[in-house]
Amino acid sequence: MSHSTSGTLPYVPGLENIPAAETTISTIDTDAGKIWIRGFSLEELALQSTYEEVLYLLIHGRLPDAETLSTFKQNIHEEWLIPQEIWDIITTLPRDTHPMDVLRTAISALAGFDRELDNQSHEANIRKAVRLVAKTGFIVGNLENIASGGVMGFRRELGHAANILQAILGRTAEDYEVKAFETAFILYIEHELAASTFASRVIASTMTDIYGAVCGALSALKGPLHGGANEKALEIFQYDVAGAEKLVRDKLAAKERIMGFGHRVYRRGIDPRAQVMKNILAELCKRHGDDRLYRVAVRVEELMASEKNLYPNLDFYVAPVYKILGIPPKLFTPLFAASRMAGWCAHVIEQQHDNRIFRPRALYKGARGISYRRP
Amino acid sequence: MSHSTSGTLPYVPGLENIPAAETTISTIDTDAGKIWIRGFSLEELALQSTYEEVLYLLIHGRLPDAETLSTFKQNIHEEWLIPQEIWDIITTLPRDTHPMDVLRTAISALAGFDRELDNQSHEANIRKAVRLVAKTGFIVGNLENIASGGVMGFRRELGHAANILQAILGRTAEDYEVKAFETAFILYIEHELAASTFASRVIASTMTDIYGAVCGALSALKGPLHGGANEKALEIFQYDVAGAEKLVRDKLAAKERIMGFGHRVYRRGIDPRAQVMKNILAELCKRHGDDRLYRVAVRVEELMASEKNLYPNLDFYVAPVYKILGIPPKLFTPLFAASRMAGWCAHVIEQQHDNRIFRPRALYKGARGISYRRP
Repeated sequence: MSHSTSGTLPYVPGLENIPAAETTISTIDTDAGKIWIRGFSLEELALQSTYEEVLYLLIHGRLPDAETLSTFKQNIHEEWLIPQEIWDIITTLPRDTHPMDVLRTAISALAGFDRELDNQSHEANIRKAVRLVAKTGFIVGNLENIASGGVMGFRRELGHAANILQAILGRTAEDYEVKAFETAFILYIEHELAASTFASRVIASTMTDIYGAVCGALSALKGPLHGGANEKALEIFQYDVAGAEKLVRDKLAAKERIMGFGHRVYRRGIDPRAQVMKNILAELCKRHGDDRLYRVAVRVEELMASEKNLYPNLDFYVAPVYKILGIPPKLFTPLFAASRMAGWCAHVIEQQHDNRIFRPRALYKGARGISYRRP
Repeated sequence: MSHSTSGTLPYVPGLENIPAAETTISTIDTDAGKIWIRGFSLEELALQSTYEEVLYLLIHGRLPDAETLSTFKQNIHEEWLIPQEIWDIITTLPRDTHPMDVLRTAISALAGFDRELDNQSHEANIRKAVRLVAKTGFIVGNLENIASGGVMGFRRELGHAANILQAILGRTAEDYEVKAFETAFILYIEHELAASTFASRVIASTMTDIYGAVCGALSALKGPLHGGANEKALEIFQYDVAGAEKLVRDKLAAKERIMGFGHRVYRRGIDPRAQVMKNILAELCKRHGDDRLYRVAVRVEELMASEKNLYPNLDFYVAPVYKILGIPPKLFTPLFAASRMAGWCAHVIEQQHDNRIFRPRALYKGARGISYRRP
């Protein structure tokens, strides 16, 4: 920590522990081991509610009653359709474009199709949030289907998460599969000022539109220090317990990072979201009569706690659950995005409701006063 | 300023005056009334050097010698070509898509065409920076030509700024026009932690690629509190001196903002960049034998100083210069982007060279511990 020349405020790399916004959306209560979303426990919501309910809660600030929820589901359903031009743009991109870059390009292009883009009233922003969540889910569900031209429509009788899962699997999912998938999907929905969410607020603070803000968030989420990590957490689960233990010990000896462990905000124990997914993984393993993935996870968790005092984050337990469900690894980060789109939108709306542009200073360590001479 | 529950660090809306990065790229020295770019005065560079020299300075940290500059210009020239697919994507967007959204979609899509996208070595990042600056300039120069299919190629014998100007005007520009245009273009190149630059660093701090970081910056620049303002600064210049004075007084009485005035960092006087453009405006007016725009500007500047103690920023004096040059208002913000792309890239490269992920906290003002009940 060094001091600014322009004042007494300390410079903290990465703004660690610096409060950068006021929010009523969520907080990570590390003492209680809880994530509060508009007052509710995220873990409880993940197990008991639906994605639509938590989406409504995030953007409206309260849970819907039965009738409101029914109308809200209808609204989401009416918004998933994507203009043909967006599919044309997606298929124009090179085949090996990273799925997060495909998604960002699609969302960026969608801005031009939204007739309410420049209407920044609270109500219009909420409609755009629903639109963005619905369309992002639809695109992500169909990311792997686009090349084959077999885009799978969403069914009115299914929830948003179930629709995404059936589009990925190419078949109706079993109830227990939907439950496991939707639990993970809800757990990813919002997590205070993660780098992507912070990026969305910084961008929104120029009073630009919500599409622009979430394009920046999508870019940030792709990074390997953020959402890009969840795909990599899968590596360890290719092994049996002994193999996984060897891999971890080798990586630790080589001072390599073990993906799925550690989180700046969680220092003293397991990410509460990871605990929920750990239980889901145990159930899935039991149902399938094969507990290898669970045993690998538990052994690696023990090892990391004793060797490094590091604890699993959500990604670590989502990876084996997605693996069992048959979800392709390249969709792991896009699924994170499809869920977190709700949190980003809630933060953009909140930021613009009581805005102050983010314009910090930099500590200058360079030269001054060099005279220019023509080369 | 209120205090964080988690510590003693103060919450400052918009991170005003909070140091958020260390940099050797640039600093705004308000006491000296100078902007230092890698040690050189930006105002001096704008008047004496070329855009290519300042671009080289920004990304390499030193000015090029004559031979290096010649090779560097060649590199830029080799990078302006855009894959046909990007033009196809641009023409697939609705005709009335905001030019900044067109540009962001194009840059987002270009990520998939860059074979070095995932190579984050310093050298590869520098090559990508040159590529991004070259291609952004080419796209912006031709934004208005695309619909008519008349994209205008860049000429080897012209500099980057001159090439952009001739693409916009549809003809070779006069030397004095290039000089005025290039001076503004250089002045826009870099300005420390503006909101867009800060957004690019936040995104880059997840160690994602440079295309993603600048997509977020483009989104931020579009905002009316940031780059979106420069187009609006034109309003006042539709009037004569008396009309402009009336408009300003009416706006002040209605407590409306006058675009082109005020900047968080410049409190006590004119933005030094604006002073450079003020002189350019005076020269242009003299050459054209019509000093109306200059007289309007000076009168409004006096009025704002005496009435509001507010001083012009760069946008205020660029608007009438662009007007005289015949640049369409919808290109004002994209031109800002085409120049600032260099600053964004320099900051992304610097951020990733010694990275710490931006992950601040939020002050939670919401509820806790509400029990979930099914609707």
